[in-house]
Amino acid sequence: MLSMNLAPLSGLYAPSLSLLTDLYQVTMAYGYWQQGLQDREAVFHLYFRRPPFKGGYAVAAGLAYVADFLENLAFSEDDLTYLGNLQGEKGTPLFPPEFLDYLRTMEFSCDVDAMPEGTVAFANEPLIRVQGPLLQAQLIETALLTLVNFQTLIATKAARIREAAGTDTVLEFGLRRAQGTDGGLSASRAAYLGGVDATSNVLAGQRFGIPVKGTHAHSWVMAFEDEETAFTAYARAFPDDSVFLVDTYDTLEGVRKAIKVARAMRAEGHELGGIRLDSGDLAYLSREARELLNEAGFPNVRIVASNDLEENLITSLKSQGAKIDTWGIGTQLVTAYDQPALGGVYKLAALRKPDDSGWDFTIKLSEQLAKTSTPGILQVRRYETDKGQPRADMLYNTATPLPEGPLVIIDPLDATRRRSVRAETPSRELLEPVFRRGRLLQPLPPLAESRARAHREVLALDPSIRRFLNPHTYPVGLEETLYNYRNHLIREKRGLEEA
Amino acid sequence: MLSMNLAPLSGLYAPSLSLLTDLYQVTMAYGYWQQGLQDREAVFHLYFRRPPFKGGYAVAAGLAYVADFLENLAFSEDDLTYLGNLQGEKGTPLFPPEFLDYLRTMEFSCDVDAMPEGTVAFANEPLIRVQGPLLQAQLIETALLTLVNFQTLIATKAARIREAAGTDTVLEFGLRRAQGTDGGLSASRAAYLGGVDATSNVLAGQRFGIPVKGTHAHSWVMAFEDEETAFTAYARAFPDDSVFLVDTYDTLEGVRKAIKVARAMRAEGHELGGIRLDSGDLAYLSREARELLNEAGFPNVRIVASNDLEENLITSLKSQGAKIDTWGIGTQLVTAYDQPALGGVYKLAALRKPDDSGWDFTIKLSEQLAKTSTPGILQVRRYETDKGQPRADMLYNTATPLPEGPLVIIDPLDATRRRSVRAETPSRELLEPVFRRGRLLQPLPPLAESRARAHREVLALDPSIRRFLNPHTYPVGLEETLYNYRNHLIREKRGLEEA
Repeated sequence: MLSMNLAPLSGLYAPSLSLLTDLYQVTMAYGYWQQGLQDREAVFHLYFRRPPFKGGYAVAAGLAYVADFLENLAFSEDDLTYLGNLQGEKGTPLFPPEFLDYLRTMEFSCDVDAMPEGTVAFANEPLIRVQGPLLQAQLIETALLTLVNFQTLIATKAARIREAAGTDTVLEFGLRRAQGTDGGLSASRAAYLGGVDATSNVLAGQRFGIPVKGTHAHSWVMAFEDEETAFTAYARAFPDDSVFLVDTYDTLEGVRKAIKVARAMRAEGHELGGIRLDSGDLAYLSREARELLNEAGFPNVRIVASNDLEENLITSLKSQGAKIDTWGIGTQLVTAYDQPALGGVYKLAALRKPDDSGWDFTIKLSEQLAKTSTPGILQVRRYETDKGQPRADMLYNTATPLPEGPLVIIDPLDATRRRSVRAETPSRELLEPVFRRGRLLQPLPPLAESRARAHREVLALDPSIRRFLNPHTYPVGLEETLYNYRNHLIREKRGLEEA
Repeated sequence: MLSMNLAPLSGLYAPSLSLLTDLYQVTMAYGYWQQGLQDREAVFHLYFRRPPFKGGYAVAAGLAYVADFLENLAFSEDDLTYLGNLQGEKGTPLFPPEFLDYLRTMEFSCDVDAMPEGTVAFANEPLIRVQGPLLQAQLIETALLTLVNFQTLIATKAARIREAAGTDTVLEFGLRRAQGTDGGLSASRAAYLGGVDATSNVLAGQRFGIPVKGTHAHSWVMAFEDEETAFTAYARAFPDDSVFLVDTYDTLEGVRKAIKVARAMRAEGHELGGIRLDSGDLAYLSREARELLNEAGFPNVRIVASNDLEENLITSLKSQGAKIDTWGIGTQLVTAYDQPALGGVYKLAALRKPDDSGWDFTIKLSEQLAKTSTPGILQVRRYETDKGQPRADMLYNTATPLPEGPLVIIDPLDATRRRSVRAETPSRELLEPVFRRGRLLQPLPPLAESRARAHREVLALDPSIRRFLNPHTYPVGLEETLYNYRNHLIREKRGLEEA
């Protein structure tokens, strides 16, 4: 339910996050207003150009925050006073009072279509499509990018870590290295969405209903005379929920002391839950620890490992025969250390003609074809096998009729790569209505449902697309009509004669 | 003033960020409480082990957020209900009601000493020292690390970019790629503190008084018939504050159109402020653009450049003779792209003896000597030349008297590196009192003052320490008594006989 899931976020946003934007969105808003263009209907798409981490896919996330942001979009008097006091180079106000009056009464009235959170997305596919008054659709750009770029990045990283860990338990505990409070909070949410099992972040547990886990730090051990006393004290506090951190002084000595205390616990009817290794050679130490524990009669004591782990290290440790049951992932996950930003963009793709006679479709050129945008009012259609495995995605312009008969999908970067799909091939449209005329149509799915979707959709991908090293490129193309129209626009904008 | 500077942050934190912590801080708190150790006086230090970006220094930041967090530290009834509902493996409550009652009435009562924001800091130097009841001092670990790790990282990145840009204008506009809302907001603050001149982030401008800048995006150009019409429309809205983005279709064609519109502006008594290049070969394009502008009689039109810039690219562009006046820095700055986390830690270093007869100093060992902590109640003394240039820093234990006469400073990683300092050498103590018995002693300095401090302190460093590639290591050592005591503790904990 939305009220359960998101209402607390408004608290985080209080008193107002409507100024969470780049100044140029406001200067452009003023410019549109001055030109009388504020209500011209426009269409923007939010998309990324490459999946993160040199991977083959991304897991869409952040839409819940976006919905919350848009529902609360309004300029407070403080906001307007601040904008009114901004001055230009010559010391005169940047914005006239009449424009601020316009902002004061502006009500968000756009349509928003989006991939549900947890949807597997590929390069150049709109995750979000915004259609509505030009001024508004432009103004929200920055916030949408901030929220979706980061959460999609983290959900994708989590999905990769889940891939590496298989069915092992994965805990996220990166808050202390996160990029700010919300960098931690929204990372915990996105990581859970992408596939981790629990977080150490209590606030994330409270706000989002994510399971929370954690035992003790080195300082607990250091606060006692010796390790054994420290473990014993901890076991007294949590007789059935203890995981001892064994590497404060000497790891294998620490394991032996954990075993000693575990025996005393067992004598009182309790079982040690696990031990945690946080340094050293985790492959070697985990095997040695496992052996010590097994020999002592504790085959069910779990071994938790942490220390800058990520998907490649997990894969490597597993291949070395490490005996690790639970993976604790911090910095590498919550900051997406190896690629800390997703380069998502938000591009204007259509503008209603002044005489209302239809649409002008727009394009942003670039020296690199890969950075040239796609015009139209786009939808993404995913063709699947009978078993629900994705086969190819097609971007098409909903404002122009699709041709009859089999459709042709063309790779915009390589026109020789094309495929034909028959009308009866199973498919689904990935962008679903979220807002209509500024109103949220229905509560977004609960986090658990988005998480299940991510899990299902990632597993449905061919392993060649999921692998970490040089994954296969999933076919995403433009429907032939759109492909031809885009090329026509490129030639037109470049000023070349058409043959 | 604090009320000006920080009160709005409480809004961001509402309703309560007291659960912004790892679960293990709460389980340890319960353990300490159960053992009757909650009020045992403890000392923790927050420090990092290596300056970020393979650099020679860091710029301390985040203390203003820390102070705000600590002043508002209190568990709400919602927080306590949430904690009370947490269950262990066997389905029983993790925390008994008596402990939650304790948390309900707990009042923060620690002493906090810290380097003022903007102080240049080196590896292993406490940025913050917390002294007070063990339970409280432990409980705040995660929040302090989150706030200080990230903001110190960004302030340091900004100082490096400032170093590369020299006296050129530097704008931060990374919000859209930031790690969450606060990842953007606190990054804008830290970037300004570290040396950038302005931000695009309007909320940061409003909350922190940072100058805001920005003009228009590609979508502005795309929303008009052609570039010239778009520029003309923008100039009408901002006749004295226009910077035209010229690369939507073809960069040098865009420059020519900007010149055409600039001429029309001049005819009406206005001057174009600048043009912005956002793609392509910035060295080549800026030189060509400069020439076109100069030839047309616009030598004062600034050239703004952006596109994944950071300190090394700025240095490279300058060495190629790029004609860039203003640097727009986004992703690379606000996410600290090349090292998105500072590995700051928070370690227990002293614990009052049970019989109150003095202190037990504590140490965390590691296989790597560099990761072994330093015991004591530490202060950092910076020795400087008469001109205020730092010469060496000395960590010493304030709980033991310093020897008479010249002091000896020893590198903990290389005992052969030692230096002697005479009593009359100018010096200052870097950790200053911030909280006493849980009360903030005085408002923290305003942001502008912290920014001036950062600027002053970075410039006072020898260029060999500021350089990007293989910087010289600034001498930081332990006072001899502390050095010897630490070695003694290491041997004792490792269980070796002393010779």
